[in-house]
Amino acid sequence: MRVELLTIGDELLIGDTVNGNAAWLGRRLADHGVDVTRSVVVGDELDVIVEAVEAALGRADAVITTGGLGPTYDDLTRDALAKAAGAALVRDPALEKRLRERADRSGRELKPMALRMAEVPEGARVLDNSAGSAPGLRVELPGGVAYALPGVPYEMRAIMEEVVLPELAGPLRLVRRTLRTACVWESVIATALAPVEAMDGVRLAYLPDPGTVSVRITAPEGRVDEAEAKARELLGDAVYGAGDDDLATVVHRLLIDRDATVATAESLTGGLIGAELTRAPGSSVTYAGGVVTYATEQKHRLLGVPAELLEEHGAVHPDVAAAMAAGVRGLLGTTYGIAVTGVAGPEPQDGEPVGTVYIGLAGPDGEPIVTDPQLAVNGTGPEMRGVIRQMTVVHALEQLRRALLGLDGQPGTQHAQEDREE
Amino acid sequence: MRVELLTIGDELLIGDTVNGNAAWLGRRLADHGVDVTRSVVVGDELDVIVEAVEAALGRADAVITTGGLGPTYDDLTRDALAKAAGAALVRDPALEKRLRERADRSGRELKPMALRMAEVPEGARVLDNSAGSAPGLRVELPGGVAYALPGVPYEMRAIMEEVVLPELAGPLRLVRRTLRTACVWESVIATALAPVEAMDGVRLAYLPDPGTVSVRITAPEGRVDEAEAKARELLGDAVYGAGDDDLATVVHRLLIDRDATVATAESLTGGLIGAELTRAPGSSVTYAGGVVTYATEQKHRLLGVPAELLEEHGAVHPDVAAAMAAGVRGLLGTTYGIAVTGVAGPEPQDGEPVGTVYIGLAGPDGEPIVTDPQLAVNGTGPEMRGVIRQMTVVHALEQLRRALLGLDGQPGTQHAQEDREE
Repeated sequence: MRVELLTIGDELLIGDTVNGNAAWLGRRLADHGVDVTRSVVVGDELDVIVEAVEAALGRADAVITTGGLGPTYDDLTRDALAKAAGAALVRDPALEKRLRERADRSGRELKPMALRMAEVPEGARVLDNSAGSAPGLRVELPGGVAYALPGVPYEMRAIMEEVVLPELAGPLRLVRRTLRTACVWESVIATALAPVEAMDGVRLAYLPDPGTVSVRITAPEGRVDEAEAKARELLGDAVYGAGDDDLATVVHRLLIDRDATVATAESLTGGLIGAELTRAPGSSVTYAGGVVTYATEQKHRLLGVPAELLEEHGAVHPDVAAAMAAGVRGLLGTTYGIAVTGVAGPEPQDGEPVGTVYIGLAGPDGEPIVTDPQLAVNGTGPEMRGVIRQMTVVHALEQLRRALLGLDGQPGTQHAQEDREE
Repeated sequence: MRVELLTIGDELLIGDTVNGNAAWLGRRLADHGVDVTRSVVVGDELDVIVEAVEAALGRADAVITTGGLGPTYDDLTRDALAKAAGAALVRDPALEKRLRERADRSGRELKPMALRMAEVPEGARVLDNSAGSAPGLRVELPGGVAYALPGVPYEMRAIMEEVVLPELAGPLRLVRRTLRTACVWESVIATALAPVEAMDGVRLAYLPDPGTVSVRITAPEGRVDEAEAKARELLGDAVYGAGDDDLATVVHRLLIDRDATVATAESLTGGLIGAELTRAPGSSVTYAGGVVTYATEQKHRLLGVPAELLEEHGAVHPDVAAAMAAGVRGLLGTTYGIAVTGVAGPEPQDGEPVGTVYIGLAGPDGEPIVTDPQLAVNGTGPEMRGVIRQMTVVHALEQLRRALLGLDGQPGTQHAQEDREE
C-alpha cells in the first residue's frame, strides 16, 4: 500500500504555516505499516490541485489531501475532486441540515458562503467530522482513492483516526510506548538499549530535551510489552515515568503517597521550579510555595543563609544550597525544602564557571543533601542560559524524586553500572 | 521567477522531522518577491530524486533542494544532480583540503566516508558553507538551475542568505518590521490597522500568543518606515516594543532608567513572572527576587496578608492582590512590588470563575493599584490553565510597564478610543 500526501494552501508555500499535518500523517501511517512515498504542497489553484491529485494517483494507490475544505472561495479541494472525477458538485441535504442546526444553536446567521461546506462531488462518500464543520470526503478516481481532509489539525486528526486509518490500514500493526528519563545522557541510554534496538521489528527513537531523554519504542502489537519490559530492566531507576508523565507529576504523586509537602528556594531559575510544580491543577495539596532569592543579599534576608558564608564563598556554593533548602523548609513549614543556586551565564559568577549548579535538599530525615550536577552544556551562545535553567529544574525535581524513593543520588542504567564496575 | 522546493529525506516522510526548512525558504523567497509554486518531499532514493528535480524544472525556472548532502550512503543529492546533468562526480581538491584541515584541527581522523562531501558533479559550482562541512551546489540542468543546500537548518540558512538569495532574487525588495503589543485583542488591533493594510504593497500578519499580539509589517523597502510610523500612531501606547523586544526586557530597561527595583509575589503563576524577569542575563540589577505563596495560608505567613481578609473573601480578591504587592515590596525592600492572585482552573476557586485574575502593584507613590483583567479565555480544556497563567504573566508585566511610564491602566489604540467616545 503506497500513499502520497497532498497539502493544499498558499499559506504553506509562503511559509506562514509549517506543514505539521504532513508530519503527523506520515507518523501515523508509518505506525500502521503504510508507506508514504511522497508529500507535495501546492497553492490554492484549481487546475494545479487537479493535476497534483492525478499525478499522485499515477504513482501511488491512494492520496490524502489536507486543506481547502473550508467555506471561503479559495477553498477549492471539493471543486478539484469533482473535476478529477468528472462529476458535478451537489449539495448534500444531511450536511446542509447539520450546518443550519449548528448555526441555530449558536444563535448565528448561516452565511451563504458557509453552505459551500455542504457541497460534495456526486458519488463521493462523506466522512464524518466529529470535531468541526467541514466534513472529509472519499472519492474514487480512475487512478485510485482520494481522501480529502480539512486543514485544521484537530479536525484532520479526528477524521483520520476515526475513519481513514481503520479503512486504509486495517488493524493497528505498530504500537508506541514512551519511557521517560532524567539526568542521563542520550548516548548512555542508547548504548544501554542496544539489545532492545536489536529485537526484531522494534524501532527506538530518542527525544532529548534539556535534562531529559524520552525513549519512544515502536513495535508490533504482540511484541511491545516485551520490548518495554526489557527497556525498563536495562534503564533501571533512570526511568521516572511513562506515556504522558512529567517529572513534576511524578513528584506530586510520591509526595501525596507520603502525606508530605515541599517548598522551593530558587536562584538562577528565578521561579521556574515553582512554575513547573504548579503546572498541573491540584498542586497546592503538596506544593506550599517558595521564595525566589535572585539577588544574593536576599538569600540572607529571606532564608537566613549566614552572611559570612555568602561573603566568604559567594552565592554559588554547596553550603549555600543546603542553607537555602533548610531555610525555605522552615519558613513555609513543609516536609521538604528544595533549593538551587548556580551560574546560568553567559558570564561566570563568584569565580564559578557557567553551568555550575548546586542543589540542596532538606527533609525530615536529618542532614541536608547537596548534589553538584556540573551541567554538561556544549556551546556558549545566548540560548545556553535557557538550557541551563531548564536542566536545573529537571535536576532539582529528579533529586527530590530520588530522595522520596530512597534511591542514591545517581540515576542508574545497566550500562552505566557496567562502566562503574570496570 | 518561479521556484520549486524539493526536500529530500525519509525522516520527513515518516514524520520524524517537521519540514521547517521549506517554511523558512518560502518566507524568505516571498520577501524577495520570488514565487514558490510547489514544495515536494521525497525519500532517499536516487531515481526518485532525479525524476523530481527534472519534473520541478519542467514547471519552474529553478529548484532548491535541501538535504542529502551529508557523508553517509543515503545522502544521494550529489549523485542525483550528476545523473540529471549527465556528468560524472569528481572530487574537488579545494574541498578535500578543507575537510582534511578541519579534521586535523579537531584532532580527529577523517573517515573515507566523509570524503563524499568533497565530491561534486563535473561543471557544478560549489557554494561556500560558512556554518558547516557540506557545501552547497549550483548545477545548470536542461530545464533550469538547481541549487542544492544541506538539510541542517542553520547551514541551509547561511548558504541561502549569503549566496543563493542575492543571486536568485537580486536586491532585497521587501522588508519586515515587527511591532509588539500586550493586553489588546487581535480583532481590535486588526481593525485599528485597516488604513495600514490598505497601503499599496503593505502586508500585515498578526501573530497572537497568550496575552500578546505581534504585528508583522512586510513592505517594500521604500515604504516600510511610513507603514511602521502609521501603525505606531494608530496603536498608540498599546505598542510596548519592536523587533526582538519582549515585555520583561522593556520593563527592565524602564526600571534601570528610574534606578528602581522590583519584587514579585505570585500565586496562580507559581513563579512564572520571576522566571520571565530573569530570562535575560543581568536581571539582578533590577529584580531582587520574590515569593510564591501558592497555598492560601502562605499569603498570610510570608506576606502578612491579613488572615481576616483571607477568611472573609478567600485568596482571589483585589484587596489580597494589593496586600501581597505591599507585603513583598516591604519584605524584599524594593521600589516596586507586583503581585497576582487568581483562578487558573480547571475548577473555580473561592466562588470565583476560571480566568478571574487580580494584579496588585505597590510603588513609591502611595496607594496600591489593583487591576482586574477578567481574562477573556475561550474553551475549558486542560490547556486553558497554561494559557491563563501565561496571560497573567503578560498582564502583570504590562501593568508594571504602564505604571513606570505613568500611563493609565488600559492600553489604548485609536480604534479603541473611538469606541470609548461613541
